Amino acid sequence: MHLIDLIARKRDGGRISPDEWRTFAVDYVAGKFPDYQVAALLMAVYFRGLDDEETYALTGAMLDSGVRLDLSHLGSAAIDKHSTGGVGDKISIILAPLVAACGVLVPMISGRALGHTGGTLDKLESIPGFNTRLSLDAARAQVERLGCVLIGQTGEIAPADKKLYALRDATATVEAIPLIAASIMSKKLAEGLGGLVLDVKTGAGAFLPETERALELAQAMIAIGERRGCPVVVLLTSMDHPLGVACGNALEVEESLDVLRGGGPADTRELTLALGAEMLVLGGAVDDIGEARSRLEYTLNSGAALQKFRQVVEAQGGDPRVVDTPGEVLPQAAEQRMFFSHRSGFVQRVEPRVIGRGVIALGGGRTSMEATIDASVGFRILVKPGDHIMRGQPLAAILARDAAGAELGSACVKEAIIIGDEEPARVPLISHRVTGRGVETLTK
Amino acid sequence: MHLIDLIARKRDGGRISPDEWRTFAVDYVAGKFPDYQVAALLMAVYFRGLDDEETYALTGAMLDSGVRLDLSHLGSAAIDKHSTGGVGDKISIILAPLVAACGVLVPMISGRALGHTGGTLDKLESIPGFNTRLSLDAARAQVERLGCVLIGQTGEIAPADKKLYALRDATATVEAIPLIAASIMSKKLAEGLGGLVLDVKTGAGAFLPETERALELAQAMIAIGERRGCPVVVLLTSMDHPLGVACGNALEVEESLDVLRGGGPADTRELTLALGAEMLVLGGAVDDIGEARSRLEYTLNSGAALQKFRQVVEAQGGDPRVVDTPGEVLPQAAEQRMFFSHRSGFVQRVEPRVIGRGVIALGGGRTSMEATIDASVGFRILVKPGDHIMRGQPLAAILARDAAGAELGSACVKEAIIIGDEEPARVPLISHRVTGRGVETLTK
Repeated sequence: MHLIDLIARKRDGGRISPDEWRTFAVDYVAGKFPDYQVAALLMAVYFRGLDDEETYALTGAMLDSGVRLDLSHLGSAAIDKHSTGGVGDKISIILAPLVAACGVLVPMISGRALGHTGGTLDKLESIPGFNTRLSLDAARAQVERLGCVLIGQTGEIAPADKKLYALRDATATVEAIPLIAASIMSKKLAEGLGGLVLDVKTGAGAFLPETERALELAQAMIAIGERRGCPVVVLLTSMDHPLGVACGNALEVEESLDVLRGGGPADTRELTLALGAEMLVLGGAVDDIGEARSRLEYTLNSGAALQKFRQVVEAQGGDPRVVDTPGEVLPQAAEQRMFFSHRSGFVQRVEPRVIGRGVIALGGGRTSMEATIDASVGFRILVKPGDHIMRGQPLAAILARDAAGAELGSACVKEAIIIGDEEPARVPLISHRVTGRGVETLTK
Repeated sequence: MHLIDLIARKRDGGRISPDEWRTFAVDYVAGKFPDYQVAALLMAVYFRGLDDEETYALTGAMLDSGVRLDLSHLGSAAIDKHSTGGVGDKISIILAPLVAACGVLVPMISGRALGHTGGTLDKLESIPGFNTRLSLDAARAQVERLGCVLIGQTGEIAPADKKLYALRDATATVEAIPLIAASIMSKKLAEGLGGLVLDVKTGAGAFLPETERALELAQAMIAIGERRGCPVVVLLTSMDHPLGVACGNALEVEESLDVLRGGGPADTRELTLALGAEMLVLGGAVDDIGEARSRLEYTLNSGAALQKFRQVVEAQGGDPRVVDTPGEVLPQAAEQRMFFSHRSGFVQRVEPRVIGRGVIALGGGRTSMEATIDASVGFRILVKPGDHIMRGQPLAAILARDAAGAELGSACVKEAIIIGDEEPARVPLISHRVTGRGVETLTK
C-alpha cells in the first residue's frame, strides 16, 4: 500500500477501505509511514471528512492496534464517562469513586491538559505520590478490588490513536469530527465497557462551540458504540463559562473533594448527578434516572463516595490525607490576590478560553509536551453569567507563584469577566440528551 | 512565529502575510519547521488556495531563499522557456541551442522526470559525460561564452522551493495552482531573465488537464512575472498525445538532433518554432513573430543550431560525436519489437499517461528518488490521433532491455493506442496565447 495514493484519493473526495485503514494503523505504529505523509492525509480528512463506514473502520483499526482491558470475569458491567474537554471540569475525579461506590465498575482512562482545557491526569497528579501510569494488569486488579481506577492512555491502548493524536495536535487537524469520534471511541472501547456516557461540550470554551457540530459528533460516537455493542448516552453541556469555581490543578482536586463531601458549586454537583445517573442506569444498578439520582445523592451525603476516593488515592500511591486536610497536602500558591469589580451590573460572560489560557500563563499548563506543571496556581472564579454584582465586590481569586504572576492573572480576569447593564439570557447547563433512539432537547 | 498558527489560519481560509511567508521560507530551509507541519500547511493551501498577494509573496520568499544568476553585464536580454511537463516533450533540448544561435541568451534550468512525464536533465544525461550539475558561476561563464547552458536546479537556487517541491511530491500537494506558479516562477526569476516563455500543457497527459485551470495557472505566472519586471508569454499546448515520435531518454535526444538538423516530426518542429519565435521577440532579436520564425527556420536549416548544440555538449563534458553518430554514442536497447495494429480504422487516442508510465515500467523513469534510469528504453509512437491506419500496420516500436520488457511495452502500447471507426475531431497543437494584455484563442 502506497500512502501517497490514499492521500490523493482522500484529497479528491474518495473513500479509504476498511482493509486500507487497518493496514494504515498497523504500519503507522510500526513506523512505516513518515509523519509528513500522515499529516497530509489528516489535513485532507479535515477537509473531505470520513463517511460512517470509514469512521467505524478507522476506530476499529486504532482499537485493534493495541490491547483491551478484559473485565468480563467480574460479572458486572463497566461504565465510563468521557468529556470533550472544558475549563474547570473536574467531574471525572468525582464521578469515578462516586459511581464505583454505587456498585458500578469504572475503569477510567483520562487525558492530559490540551489547548486551553485542563486534564484529569494533571489534576490527580497534584496529589503527592498519585500514580496515573499503571499497567493494564494493575488497572484490572484495582478495578477488581475497588471498583474503579483512574489512569492515562498507556502504550498498550490504541497506540495508533496515541501517535495520530500527537500528530493532529501539532498540525491543526484536531477539530475534525470523524477524527475526534474515532479517537475517543477507540480508547473507550479498549476499556471493555458495557456502556459509555459522553459529555460533549458546546459554547465558547468548547473545541466544537456550535450545537449542530456537537450533535454531529455525538451521533458519530453513538453509531460507533452501538455497532460495537456498547450503548452510548451523550449529554450536550454548556462550556460557556468555567465549570464550578476552581480552575487550576490542585484547586480542582480541592473542589472535587467538596463535591464528594456532599457540597461544592451547584453546577459541578448538578453535572455530576446528571452524568452519574446515566452511568448507574447503563450499568444496571438502578431502574431509572430518578432512582439513580437519589442513590448518588445518598452516596455523596453518606461519605461513601469520599471513602472510595480515599481508597483509590491510597491504592494509586497518593497521600490519602488529601481527603481530610487538602490544604496541608496539596501544593499552595505563594501569592494570592483578589480581583474586585470596578463597576456594578450583571455578569455578561466569563470567557472560559481566557481563563484556561490564564491557567497556562500562570504555569499551570503546558506550552510544550515536555513542560512541567505548577499544580498550585489558578483561579477561583466567584461569579457566573447572570449574577448581579456591586462595585467593589470580589470577582475572582488569583493564585500565583509571585507578584508578576498575580498581575498577569489579574489582567486575565479583567479580560475574561465582562460586566454590563442588561441581565443576560441564562444558558442551560445541559441542553440535549442524545442516545441511539434520538435527540431530546432539555432546558435544565 | 508558530507554524501551527499559520496552518490553522490557512485551514480556516485566512491569509498569510508577506513577512510570514518570508520567515517561513528562511526558517524552513534552516530546518526550523518539521516536515509534518509543512505538509499539513501545504494540504491546507491545496484546499484553501493562496490569493494573488500570497502567491507573489511566496514566490519572492522562495526566490530570496537562494541566489540569482546575474547576467546584466552581458548587455543582452536572457530569455528562457519552461514547460509544465509532458510525454515526449524534448523541446528544451532543441530550443536552448537554437535560440542561442539566433543571438538570444538562454540560461536554462530544467528538471527531472516527474510522475508520468519525462525530464530534460535525465534526457541530456543519456549523452555520455554530459554534466548538468554546474555551479552558478560555471553556468554564467558558459552563457557568456556560448550564449546558453542547460543545468539543473542547484542548492543555490530557490532552496526553499527545492525542499518544498520534494515534500509536495511526497504528499499529493503538487496540483495546486498557486504552488505550481510560485514554484516555477521562483526558479525562473532566479535566472535573471529579461523575459520568459511558458508552455502550459492541457489535455489528458497534463498535470492540469482542463483548459480553464491551465489558463488560471498561466495568468498567475504572468502576474508574478510582470510585477517582477519579467514579461511572460504563455502558449497553451495540447498534451492529448505524446509529442513527436520518440518517448524515452536517449530516443528523445536522437529526435532532438533530427529537429536541430532541420527535420523531425511536424508537431515537435512546429512547437519549437512557435515557442522559439516568442523567445526571439521577447529577447529583442527580431521585431515580430513572422521574422522570428524565418530566422529560426534558417538557423535550423543552416546547421548553426546543430553546431551550437555540439558546442554545448562539449562544454558540459558530453561526447560531441553524439551530434553526428548518435546511434554509436547513445545507449541502445537490447530488445526492439514492433507493435502492429489488429484492425483498420482511425486512431482515436494515444494516451500520454499510459505511454509515460510505460517508459517508467521499462526502466526509463524513477519509482523512487534514488533509482537510476535506463536511458536506452522507450517507445517510438508511429501514429497520431486522426491517422487512418490499416490492419497489420506498425503502430509503435518498443525498445526494451529484454523480452519481458518488450512484452510489457506491447501491453502498454495496446492500452494506449485506441483504434475506432469514426474519424476523431482534431485537437489544435496550440490553443491559446496568453500575455499580460489578455488571452488569444488560436486554432493552429
